[in-house]
This record gives sequence, C-alpha cells and structure tokens, in this order.
Amino acid sequence: MGDGAESVVTGINDLRSAQPDQVSFLANAKYEPLAQASRAAAILVSPKDSPRFSFTRIVVESPSLAFGQISALFAPAPIRDEPGIHPSAVIAPDAVLGEGVSIQAHAVIAAGVRLGARCVVGANCFIGEQTTMGDDSRLYPLVTVRERSVIGARVIIHSGAVIGSDGFGYDFDPKTGRHVKITHTGQVQIDDDAEIGANTTIDRGRFGKTHIGEGVKIDNLVQIAHNVTIGAHSIVVSQTGISGSTSLGRYVTLAGQVGLAGHLTVGDRATVTAQSGLNKDVPAGAVLAGHHAMPIRESLKVEALTRRLPELVERLKALEAKVRSLS
Amino acid sequence: MGDGAESVVTGINDLRSAQPDQVSFLANAKYEPLAQASRAAAILVSPKDSPRFSFTRIVVESPSLAFGQISALFAPAPIRDEPGIHPSAVIAPDAVLGEGVSIQAHAVIAAGVRLGARCVVGANCFIGEQTTMGDDSRLYPLVTVRERSVIGARVIIHSGAVIGSDGFGYDFDPKTGRHVKITHTGQVQIDDDAEIGANTTIDRGRFGKTHIGEGVKIDNLVQIAHNVTIGAHSIVVSQTGISGSTSLGRYVTLAGQVGLAGHLTVGDRATVTAQSGLNKDVPAGAVLAGHHAMPIRESLKVEALTRRLPELVERLKALEAKVRSLS
Amino acid sequence: MGDGAESVVTGINDLRSAQPDQVSFLANAKYEPLAQASRAAAILVSPKDSPRFSFTRIVVESPSLAFGQISALFAPAPIRDEPGIHPSAVIAPDAVLGEGVSIQAHAVIAAGVRLGARCVVGANCFIGEQTTMGDDSRLYPLVTVRERSVIGARVIIHSGAVIGSDGFGYDFDPKTGRHVKITHTGQVQIDDDAEIGANTTIDRGRFGKTHIGEGVKIDNLVQIAHNVTIGAHSIVVSQTGISGSTSLGRYVTLAGQVGLAGHLTVGDRATVTAQSGLNKDVPAGAVLAGHHAMPIRESLKVEALTRRLPELVERLKALEAKVRSLS
Repeated sequence: MGDGAESVVTGINDLRSAQPDQVSFLANAKYEPLAQASRAAAILVSPKDSPRFSFTRIVVESPSLAFGQISALFAPAPIRDEPGIHPSAVIAPDAVLGEGVSIQAHAVIAAGVRLGARCVVGANCFIGEQTTMGDDSRLYPLVTVRERSVIGARVIIHSGAVIGSDGFGYDFDPKTGRHVKITHTGQVQIDDDAEIGANTTIDRGRFGKTHIGEGVKIDNLVQIAHNVTIGAHSIVVSQTGISGSTSLGRYVTLAGQVGLAGHLTVGDRATVTAQSGLNKDVPAGAVLAGHHAMPIRESLKVEALTRRLPELVERLKALEAKVRSLS
Repeated sequence: MGDGAESVVTGINDLRSAQPDQVSFLANAKYEPLAQASRAAAILVSPKDSPRFSFTRIVVESPSLAFGQISALFAPAPIRDEPGIHPSAVIAPDAVLGEGVSIQAHAVIAAGVRLGARCVVGANCFIGEQTTMGDDSRLYPLVTVRERSVIGARVIIHSGAVIGSDGFGYDFDPKTGRHVKITHTGQVQIDDDAEIGANTTIDRGRFGKTHIGEGVKIDNLVQIAHNVTIGAHSIVVSQTGISGSTSLGRYVTLAGQVGLAGHLTVGDRATVTAQSGLNKDVPAGAVLAGHHAMPIRESLKVEALTRRLPELVERLKALEAKVRSLS
Repeated sequence: MGDGAESVVTGINDLRSAQPDQVSFLANAKYEPLAQASRAAAILVSPKDSPRFSFTRIVVESPSLAFGQISALFAPAPIRDEPGIHPSAVIAPDAVLGEGVSIQAHAVIAAGVRLGARCVVGANCFIGEQTTMGDDSRLYPLVTVRERSVIGARVIIHSGAVIGSDGFGYDFDPKTGRHVKITHTGQVQIDDDAEIGANTTIDRGRFGKTHIGEGVKIDNLVQIAHNVTIGAHSIVVSQTGISGSTSLGRYVTLAGQVGLAGHLTVGDRATVTAQSGLNKDVPAGAVLAGHHAMPIRESLKVEALTRRLPELVERLKALEAKVRSLS
C-alpha cells in the first residue's frame, strides 16, 4: 500500500494489478483480502467498510460508481460517431432515418425500416424490412436484425448478435420420416434501455413475439428461443440458454451457462446460479442451484454430502462388518 | 374460454397468451392444463384428445400442422427476395450463378463458386473459393462459408453461422514448448434440406470432411468440430458441442447444452437429454442423461437418491448410534 | 489392411474411414483398436509402438507431424490472398498499412489503425479506431475488432469472432431500480502466435486490459470476460466461459464447456476437464473435474459412488432391517 499522503496518482486499476501510483476500489466484501494486499496508492471504500481498514482510503458512498467517474478522467477520449450516412451504406429509398443518425460503412438497411433520432448503425450491419428502432439506440458493427423487429430507445446491441432469426421448430411427418419446418411469422421486441451481448442470438416468435423487457441486460453468446419473455431489469449472464415460450419475471438473474427448459415460468427476483438446469417453474425470489435446480441451501448440502460419499461408504461398510459380528 | 359459436377470430396465439378473439392449438398432452385455462376462442385438438375436453375446439388430424396453415392466413406477407444481383455485391468473374438467384447488398462471392438456381445470398455474406450450393438454398445475412464447402439443395443457413473454419488441432513441440498448428485441408459437406442455426460454427475436416447429413436440423450457437459426421434427420439443439471425429447415426436427438467427447459413435435414434456429457459410445435407440451420461432411468434414480443424501446420511447416523448401543 | 508392398497410395484418411488405397496414422495408443481394424494401405506409427503391430506400417518419429506433411501432398492448393486493397474496402485516410497487406472486399478499417506487413483482412471485417496488428496476422471474413485493440504478429482470428466488445458490468441504482452501465474504457491485447476461434467473444477491460498471452489457442464460441488474463501457450476448448478478472497461468488447459467464476487464479499447467465448473483458485499442475471442480481422482471416485447410490441405499435398508431384528 502506497503512502497516500504523498502520492501522485497517474491511473487506476483493479486491486490485484494496481501499482503504487494508481487508485483502486473495493465494492464487494469478498475482495477484502485483495484490498489488504493491494499496492494501490489509495482505495475507494464505503463509509460502512472504512473503519475496518488501515490502508490509505477514499471514503465514498458508492465506490464502484465513484471509480467509474475517476476512470473517465484517465480514459482515452471516447470514439465519436460522426452523424451522417457513409456513401457505401445501402439504404432502401423508403427507410425513414431520424435526425442525427450515424450510418457507417457498408451497413444495409432494408425497405420500410424506421430509425429514431441519433441512432448509430455500425459498419457491415444488416437491418431487415420494416424493423423500427427508437431514439439513441446503437448497433455495433456486424449486427444482424431481421425483418419486423421492434427495438426501443437507448438499446445497445453488440457485434455479431443476431436478432429475429427463425425459431427452431419442426413438425415430424411420420409418413416421409422428415422434419417439416414450422414457419415463424412472429417477431422480436426489445424494450427501452436493454443491452444485448456480442454473438447472442434471439429467435423471432413462432407467432406473437419474443419479448425482451425494459432495462434487461443480456451478456455474450446467450441463446433466447422463440416466444420467450424476459421481464424488465432482468440479468442474463454469458452462454445461458432459454428454451421456447419460457417466461421470466422482473429482476430475475440467470448466471452463466444456465439452461432453462421450455414453457416454464420464473417468478420475479428469482436467481439461478451458474451452470444450473431448470425444468420446473420457479417461485418469486427463489435462489436455485444444480443440474435439476433446487433451492441453493439444499443444493449446497447435497453437493457437500456427495463429496463425502467415499467417507460415507466406508462408514456403511464398517457398520455392515460390526452388525455381522453382532449377529 | 370464448363462446366459439359466436366468435370472430382475428388472430392466433399460444395457449397462455391467446385472447377471446384468437385461436390456439394443443399438440402435446403436457400442455392440457394450459388448454383448460386458455381464453382462446377455440383450440385445435386431435381426434384422440378431443373427447376429454368441453372447451370450444376444432378437431384436426395434426393440430400443429393445421395451426401453421391458419397462422399463415394471419401472418404478414413474407419478405420477397427480388431475383438479381445487387450492384454492391462483389462476385468473382468465374463464379457460376444459377437462374433466378438473389445476391443481396455487399455480399462477397469468391473465385470458382457455383450456386444453384434460385439461391438467396443475404447481405454482407461471404462465400469462399470453389464452394458449391444446390438449388433453392438460402444464406441469411452475415453468414460466412469458407472455401471448398459443398452445400446441397434447399439448405437454410442462419445469420452469423460460420461454415468451414479451421479445426482446432495442434501438435505440441516439446523442444520449443509451442503448439504447432495442424493444417486443415478438408472441407464441410451439408446435404439437402439441412438447416443450420444462427451463430453456429462447423469446422472443416483436418482432411476428408465434416459431414452434415440430409434433413439434419441444427439450432443456434452449436459447435461442430472437424471430421464430425451427423446422420440424416438428426436434431441438435442450441449450445451443444460435438468434439472432433465423433459420428452420429440417423435420427439422433441431442438436446440443449450437451457435450460430446471426440471419436465417439452414437447409434441411430439415440437421444441425449439437456446438459448431459457423453464420453462413451451410445447404442442405437438409447436415451441417456447426466454428466457422465447413463441410461435415463438409471440417471433419474441416481438423481433422486442424490437429492435424498441428507436423509440417507441421517439414517446412517441413527444406525451407527443404535449399533453402538447394541455392542 | 491392404498389402502395403504392392499398394498405390492415392490419398490419406483417418483410421476409421481409410480405404485400401489410403494412408492413415496412429498417434494415440487409445486408437489402437481402430488401427487394428483399419483398411488403410499403411499406417504411420512411432518406433515405440511399431513392434506391437503386424499391419503394414511406416515408422516415423512423430506420426502426427509426418501425416501432416503427407497430407499436404494430397491437399488442394491453398487459397492465395492476393496482396492489395480491394476497391470496395473502406479505409480511413490515416490508417497505416504494412507492405504486402491483403485487404479484401467490403472490409472497413477505421481511423488510426496500423497493420503490420503481410496482414490479411478478410471480406466484411471491421477494425476499429487505433487498433494495431503485428506482421503476418490474419482476420478471416466477418471478424469484428473494436477500437484500441493491440494484436501481435502471426495472430489468426476466425470468422465471426468479436474482439473488444464492452464488458458486462452494471451498477444497480436502488433509487431508480435500474442497472447503470459501467463504461469499459480498457482494451484487449492478443500476443504473438495466438489463435482465436470462430464466433468467440473477448470483452475489453473495464480499465487496463483483457490479455491473451503468446501462443494461446482458443477454440470456437468461447467467452472471455473483461480483464481476464490467459498465460502463454494455454489451450481453451470450445464453449468454455471465463468470468471477469480471472487469471490463468501458462500452459493451462480448459476443456470444452467449462465455466470459471470471476476473480480466480489458476496456476501454470493446471487442467480442467470438460463441463466442469470452477469457483476456487487452482494450484499449479492440478487436474480438476466436476461441477464444483475437485481433483480428478476424487471426482472420479465420487462420480463412481454416485452411480452406485441405488445399491448403497439397498445395503443401508438391509442393515436397518437386520439391526431392527437384533434389538
């Protein structure tokens, strides 16, 4: 830990990597040992945590938020997206573009599209027929949005994401032994302030819609099947998959690599821990874990006993021997 | 449930979302409770299921198929892909394009490519050298097909899919401590009527080929490694991964998030349930589940007993106490 | 097995598929049964393995390496990337391009980019502002590299990969009930000789960098979160996900579909087997397995006993009955 009183701060960094001329922050009690061992000039901490520490610290209401503000001071200037339409973009004559949009090189915008004011469409994006987008939304380069999608305001979609691909549905015809494609005539609706990660896929509804609620944050490489509903302000972490017609409430958290079966209902504020599998409805507020997910307390207990199976089997054997000797 | 006799139907919907002026359908007995509770004007049911219900119903041989036909009546007009070549597309002079193809904006088609009649190549797609495609196949926007791929007729490839990337193979050189890339000179072959999901990746063979059989349906974000073979009419659900040189029979079903080790053989009509892991060959017709997948009955029993471990350990403890008191 | 002495070899193939006019190879003792059953004209084997076999064989120091050399003889000519800039590419006036670069159709290169000599930028790629790339690196078609990324020499990035997308981080504001996006002002650094698979995503650092070391090989559909560090010559197999700020040593191997929690440290040469989950630090050289990963020996024992739970419960019941009869 640097002697804060005399330090010149030249940058910021995480607790582990911080040098004696950098500032760091502690937002989660779990990282206290890293804070204690950090070489940072000073560490942002909350008023609640501060008394426990002797290292040089800056006490702020929200260390994470304050750190974000400080980091902006040291950050390189953000990339400016010049308003205007790059001459290489291909835009249907009847597309309606709001004031101040930035349409970048080789973007393709199909017939009937309507974009709100100040939207940014990155290089090599495709926006399909009749899709609409609210004000201040942004597609990073190489995003695909298929036809008739409805995207709100201030939505961010990262590179490689595919919005509105066909749902995965077939009728098996026993006479021919072939899978017959079910036409998916529905759409995808993404509400205001949602964010969609890189290379994530969101299929269109079979009919009706696949619906991503307001403020929902979806990480990279997530699969959202046809007719799924995700309630407002829910969080879906990387590589999770949600099967068709499953419905999530508001403020749900799905950690990474979770899988949900189809046609389930997950209640508000439920949490599913990483790598879990869900094949039953989940009540509001539940915290679930495990391959056939169960309440997390039960799951931790089962997990611990599973690890103790070798010892338990030894105890069973000893008991069998003893009972044999008794009889 | 609406009074069907007097209803005007203005649309269609799933059982859960259907309004009193909409028609729905029941194709799977598992959703009977949703049918009973539905507000739909009428529900399509099969002759076999019909007698069990009192709600207004329309009896048809295949509710799902009939529903697809009805939904087409209410669906917006499908997007028309105008035949012709967009002036911004870049096409090698020696590429051979069938009659009535639609090559969309900014598509890139390399030397020696041959496309069948009425193929659609979406915006910003890339088709590599000497790749061939049969009649009536379709690449949605932003698909990559690398060199020398062989794609059949009526194949559909969704946005973001990558066909023919290099396999993941290296020789470790102990002298230098470095991984030396193995050149993958093979190809990918996708047979007639297959469908490949959004952002799915299919690696080319090290030599020979990675082979997707006729009528195979692959969902989004699936990984197919080099030299994998998937037999005709198999189904691979989202986020599943198949390691190198593994061979699947016909009509195999891999549910979501399944992982298969390399060099395995999976028999015809085998099924692997969601999130399972396979590291052994699978006989034809088997239904497997679990991380080290086992027959599903066994897996369900083990799963149930695992959940009962806390109780079983209590019983073991009680028994130990009793035996102590006896001896 | 062909009579090697009289065979004309017309090609190569794997042990299973080889025809009597093809050569194959055996590099791993595990595939000996396939070698014994192979119809290949001859099989490359090592001096150590050779004495055990009677089939026609070609004895070479490294069968895999030698096979690679032979396969090059039968392989189609590699695709040549003509040096030069395709007229449809859009390149910022201040971008600096090394000697002999190949910039293909519809590629977009933003302001301040610097590319080393002989770099190849595939069709429809995007390279963001101020990104740099060393000599002889290659982006296959449809790769996205966001602003300020630092890419070394001889790096290969496969189609659909996204480098430098924003990390997934939000501060929850309890007053408004909304997730507030954390600006990610860091970057991605990929060192010399690394290879990144198709549709893999690597998020930029929140600050500082996400760092992929020299010679690291990453497969398809892998997720690397913000501020992750991967030590030199590590291997990350398909569909694995690594959460934010986790640090891997050198020569680490993560098999397919593995998940790592955030802020972990994994020691040099550690191995994590397929589908495992890691939520604790890992010492150097450890081999771990399981959902809450443990040393592989322990994991195999627990796994075996878990499968025997039905039998163990029967033994427990029998014991209970016997003790009842004794008391």
